[in-house]
Amino acid sequence: MTSLLVMCFFLMLFSSCTLANDNYNSHIFPRPLVIEYPEGNEFQLRESLEELRLQCTSWRFAVEANNLSPWKTIPPECAAYVEDYMTGRAYSYDLQRVSRAAGAFAKSVELAEDGKDVWIFDVDETLLSNLPYYAQHGYGLEIFNHTKFDKWVEEGLAPAIHSSLELYRDVTSLGFKVFFLTGRSERHGNITADNLIKVGFQHWDKLILRSPEDHPKQATMYKSEKRDEMIKEGYRIVGNSGDQWSDLLGSSPANRSFKLPNPMYYIP
Amino acid sequence: MTSLLVMCFFLMLFSSCTLANDNYNSHIFPRPLVIEYPEGNEFQLRESLEELRLQCTSWRFAVEANNLSPWKTIPPECAAYVEDYMTGRAYSYDLQRVSRAAGAFAKSVELAEDGKDVWIFDVDETLLSNLPYYAQHGYGLEIFNHTKFDKWVEEGLAPAIHSSLELYRDVTSLGFKVFFLTGRSERHGNITADNLIKVGFQHWDKLILRSPEDHPKQATMYKSEKRDEMIKEGYRIVGNSGDQWSDLLGSSPANRSFKLPNPMYYIP
Repeated sequence: MTSLLVMCFFLMLFSSCTLANDNYNSHIFPRPLVIEYPEGNEFQLRESLEELRLQCTSWRFAVEANNLSPWKTIPPECAAYVEDYMTGRAYSYDLQRVSRAAGAFAKSVELAEDGKDVWIFDVDETLLSNLPYYAQHGYGLEIFNHTKFDKWVEEGLAPAIHSSLELYRDVTSLGFKVFFLTGRSERHGNITADNLIKVGFQHWDKLILRSPEDHPKQATMYKSEKRDEMIKEGYRIVGNSGDQWSDLLGSSPANRSFKLPNPMYYIP
Repeated sequence: MTSLLVMCFFLMLFSSCTLANDNYNSHIFPRPLVIEYPEGNEFQLRESLEELRLQCTSWRFAVEANNLSPWKTIPPECAAYVEDYMTGRAYSYDLQRVSRAAGAFAKSVELAEDGKDVWIFDVDETLLSNLPYYAQHGYGLEIFNHTKFDKWVEEGLAPAIHSSLELYRDVTSLGFKVFFLTGRSERHGNITADNLIKVGFQHWDKLILRSPEDHPKQATMYKSEKRDEMIKEGYRIVGNSGDQWSDLLGSSPANRSFKLPNPMYYIP
């Protein structure tokens, strides 16, 4: 890049000599401004964009490492950054990487023959993608609206997250029991099951949804209680995949937890 | 940028007319190559660099979200990326952000008056920076060498991580007890204390180092046991700051744990 700019600069100098007769005394486009204005502007613009990219990446790291307090929406100045991340290569690279890491771990485990080795999957932003919904709602820029989101859920049109579909196929073929543990309500049980089957998740050993008494509980508590029950039933929770820390933290954690990326929303 | 390139392109075309007599028939620098070669090359180069940046950022996310198995060195293709990250703005932005988040949480806590509220700090890459050492050892590209690292520790020249110094001052002035819990050996107790004092960490309530019987233990186990002891002594572990997940996970976790960035090495 530098060499190109240097070359360009010398060519511009050269050109200005040949153009001098036409423009040298013109006050409309004084020669120094023509040379300097676009470069200075561009440098500042690039610098501001780079600064914003660094700050938004830093924010995203803080989210993924669970360093932030509960947050309701993404920072407005990172709206374009989050959209770029979610719709570009970066999100799918991150998804693939965590799925591959989980798959490698799953393959390394020696399963007992009692059928009690379990892999837990969360549903939203883990097996199913709500990106078509969030694309219409600022990728996390709008405060979460239950009524609107429920309508989207009831359409049953969420696509699969492909890297999770691969992991799901790997762990089922390895002999793990698969439990889907979701914050979705029991009344969305049928449509969720239909949606999952339609996009490739054709079998599961449990699909656990929130009962009416689970609704007031925070996700960490609700999911911990469900994992505690699994342990009481004699299961060993080997792996757990979720996009929220509330899918993974709390009591009865998995031997290995895998945090899928999600900079769009936070569930405590 | 596009406008600059377009302008450059037209100026180059213009120049080529005036330069044609000198170069048109030259086989050393054929004119079309001079115009096309740097642009095509640059696009490919930029695309490769962008791809590498995305992949290495994805790797760094996987590290910070604790998705990777134990790893011994950084990926060789990310060597320049990690160096840029550690020596540029990004690392210090990430440090500042986690420190500010921790400080905000600390201020939100209502401390009891029994002096039993504790904030734990790890030492290496949390209070003290070993960047001068790692700069000489490929920023994580070389396999960790105990002998060489011990020599560095014994110099007692590690600078403070400034954002951690600010957090340390905040939590001490709020009335927290501060416990430094480090994987460093007891035989490095004096030099570690000297180093800490010299760079601004002038007071602590405990400095816990590895005793000979702690040495075979993995860090998660060793640090969990030390936290268990604190709980038995009646302390409440309110906050915990560390650059390794092994500083934060395990038994007797803090109410809030804060993961400082560190893409250079992994301690299980």
